[in-house]
Amino acid sequence: MIKTQMEMYLHEELETLTRTEIEALQFERLLRTVRRCMKSPFYQKRFAEAHLSPEDIRSLDDLRKIPFTTKQDLRDNYPFGLAAVPMSEVVRLHSSSGTTGTPTVILHTQKDLDEWANAVARCLYMVGLRRGDVFQNSSGYGMFTGGLGFQYGAERLGMLTVPAAAGNTKRQIKFITDFGTTALHAIPSYASRIHEVMEEMGIDPVRDTKLRTLVIGAEPHSEEQRRKIEKMLGVKAYNSFGMSEMCGPGVAFECTEQNGMHIWEDYYIVEIVDPQTLEPVPDGEVGELVLTTINREAMPLLRYRTRDLTRILPGDCPCGRHHKRLDRMKGRSDDMMILKGVNIFPIQIETVLMQFEELGTDYLITLTNEEANDLMTVEVELKEFSDDYPRLQALTREITRQLKDEILLTPVVRLVPKGTLPKQEGKAVRVRDLRRTLI
Amino acid sequence: MIKTQMEMYLHEELETLTRTEIEALQFERLLRTVRRCMKSPFYQKRFAEAHLSPEDIRSLDDLRKIPFTTKQDLRDNYPFGLAAVPMSEVVRLHSSSGTTGTPTVILHTQKDLDEWANAVARCLYMVGLRRGDVFQNSSGYGMFTGGLGFQYGAERLGMLTVPAAAGNTKRQIKFITDFGTTALHAIPSYASRIHEVMEEMGIDPVRDTKLRTLVIGAEPHSEEQRRKIEKMLGVKAYNSFGMSEMCGPGVAFECTEQNGMHIWEDYYIVEIVDPQTLEPVPDGEVGELVLTTINREAMPLLRYRTRDLTRILPGDCPCGRHHKRLDRMKGRSDDMMILKGVNIFPIQIETVLMQFEELGTDYLITLTNEEANDLMTVEVELKEFSDDYPRLQALTREITRQLKDEILLTPVVRLVPKGTLPKQEGKAVRVRDLRRTLI
Repeated sequence: MIKTQMEMYLHEELETLTRTEIEALQFERLLRTVRRCMKSPFYQKRFAEAHLSPEDIRSLDDLRKIPFTTKQDLRDNYPFGLAAVPMSEVVRLHSSSGTTGTPTVILHTQKDLDEWANAVARCLYMVGLRRGDVFQNSSGYGMFTGGLGFQYGAERLGMLTVPAAAGNTKRQIKFITDFGTTALHAIPSYASRIHEVMEEMGIDPVRDTKLRTLVIGAEPHSEEQRRKIEKMLGVKAYNSFGMSEMCGPGVAFECTEQNGMHIWEDYYIVEIVDPQTLEPVPDGEVGELVLTTINREAMPLLRYRTRDLTRILPGDCPCGRHHKRLDRMKGRSDDMMILKGVNIFPIQIETVLMQFEELGTDYLITLTNEEANDLMTVEVELKEFSDDYPRLQALTREITRQLKDEILLTPVVRLVPKGTLPKQEGKAVRVRDLRRTLI
Repeated sequence: MIKTQMEMYLHEELETLTRTEIEALQFERLLRTVRRCMKSPFYQKRFAEAHLSPEDIRSLDDLRKIPFTTKQDLRDNYPFGLAAVPMSEVVRLHSSSGTTGTPTVILHTQKDLDEWANAVARCLYMVGLRRGDVFQNSSGYGMFTGGLGFQYGAERLGMLTVPAAAGNTKRQIKFITDFGTTALHAIPSYASRIHEVMEEMGIDPVRDTKLRTLVIGAEPHSEEQRRKIEKMLGVKAYNSFGMSEMCGPGVAFECTEQNGMHIWEDYYIVEIVDPQTLEPVPDGEVGELVLTTINREAMPLLRYRTRDLTRILPGDCPCGRHHKRLDRMKGRSDDMMILKGVNIFPIQIETVLMQFEELGTDYLITLTNEEANDLMTVEVELKEFSDDYPRLQALTREITRQLKDEILLTPVVRLVPKGTLPKQEGKAVRVRDLRRTLI
């Protein structure tokens, strides 16, 4: 399909569906998916155990009758126990590294690979990339899905793809300058590294390169970091969300509004649930992202608990797409703290702290309880030594106020000199829970 | 195109062309290619300098009117000087690492990638691989063409592809056993390494794996090595020839006869020339491989000097394909020695020496001249110390006799103790030319 430069949508019909149309399509595809799942030994058993049959799914809401699928299910049924097609129809698998126990495997038919490429192409097109752009991919290739995922998607769009793969920063920069790279895919920290090395090499990204678009993902980062990277490299940076269980990149992506990532609801049904109760939370509230694949043949996943924390951003997007928008990932549900019945995530604290220029990047959250009363203490390192006590007191008050606004509880804030907080294997310790169990 | 398991040819019509039909197709495609080249700034200039125009090509033999293209031409016109299409039609580039100076770049349109995948698929189909096979690729991905090249080709065939990428041998073996890998692509030395680690892990490749087919290439190896690898792993191993300038893998490949690599003459016109005179050598004689791409859009190459030494194997192949067969690569033309007017390559000496169990792997060829008489001395290390002089003398005589059979000259052979020959940066020095120039 050849599109003109000016067209806004790669798949106009699918991208501009109304909510009603999206939900009708989702229901149709959910039914097909559930029927398909009955070919997978794993889901046959899971449905039987739940006394559930495909006929029980009579509306989108009935999705909630279906039990969750977890990463442990994938491990327990490694390698091919979730296949819903004969293995002779599977043309590719991606496997996790399995550094922490049994690896997981995701299977793809040819159609799955096509649809994956379509999804990635749609994302890249959405942020203005077109045939004629030069797209450089600094992901690892092979089993890591950011490599082949972006490769196939970018090729589908007809861009000139530069499969640079990971590492060798000077070579990446040589590619950027020599090939006139206009768009780069990189994790945020690597984008910063590229800028650092450009500076060492005397290369000005605006003057000496054609780089205008950055695709960033796969690593938690804040809005401040994004704006900093945009300024450093003279680019617009778009957040990308993907995970290998959902193919890889192409699950959700920002439009040019840069206001949350549209999740492709013709591919996925999205739920946000409380990680404790597993009940849905209202739009706007943070919870665990749960995804159901409704456009996949080889290995559909029903209500997959991603462990990623995010929220649905309420309201309409001016871009004309009604596909829901995800906020940037706010950490893992395993990191969640519960204080006085309130769910709190370290990223919420971090986001507040990062807005203060006086503060360094290391902080420590300590939870204690006294007489059944939960208490949070936030220690944070100052960037530079200061003995201006009135100023430090005012700073402490302001941080406390802003933290309370964010987490709805009043923590004790302590400013400490740089380098005094504990580290483990070079990595900062973020949370220390010293509460005595009350049971 | 769905093929049954029993069919011999993936592209029957193209694979079973008669010589006459091949040459007719080649001429037609050569004409199209030459006309296409006139859109490339490089070839425009090159043709003008040679006072040549596309109309001068009136037969296949007229190919020889066209000047050679060299790697230096690619470097001098880096990055896009050889493009024969607008850059907006280029969807991928592969770049050499450029460790030795300016890198080279090869450009591909979408059709080029399709045809590349077709060529690789044809190769893999030819050795019996089919949908249902599990194909594991231990090439590096990204810029290295063995990764994406085999990936796209194996997917096209509908096999289950395992993009393992390079390194991590234990993980490769885990993939082989867990996923039921039936076919592996690896360089010969890595295939040996995999066997070594399997032994350490107590894994018997025949008993514990489904591995039956090995695709080997990208590294010089002898027939003895191939047979050894086949025995170790319980597989049939097929030689593969490719180079990034010709896309990558898929240029030439062995059929099940394992008797030379069919070069796809619907993609390439093959010439073998004397590296000194650049005149063609007869079939059966070793010379430099020169290739003309006749099925490529983005960046056709006319009479590209590969620097690889090989020969056309004379005679017909029982497999029914009339596409010429290349012998395994015999080194680089830069390594060629000329003695008494005879072209000799180190690999010829090496092949003879490797057949003697008593000999180690290190040898040194020294060329001297006395009174205009060229003399070759071959020193070779013994595997183990021996003072059984009659036996050593007999061995020396036998080596001398076999070398003379191979190179048609009688060298002086000296057996030396292990570890006595010079090394450079850990790598053996193979040739030392001490001849005084006579001019």
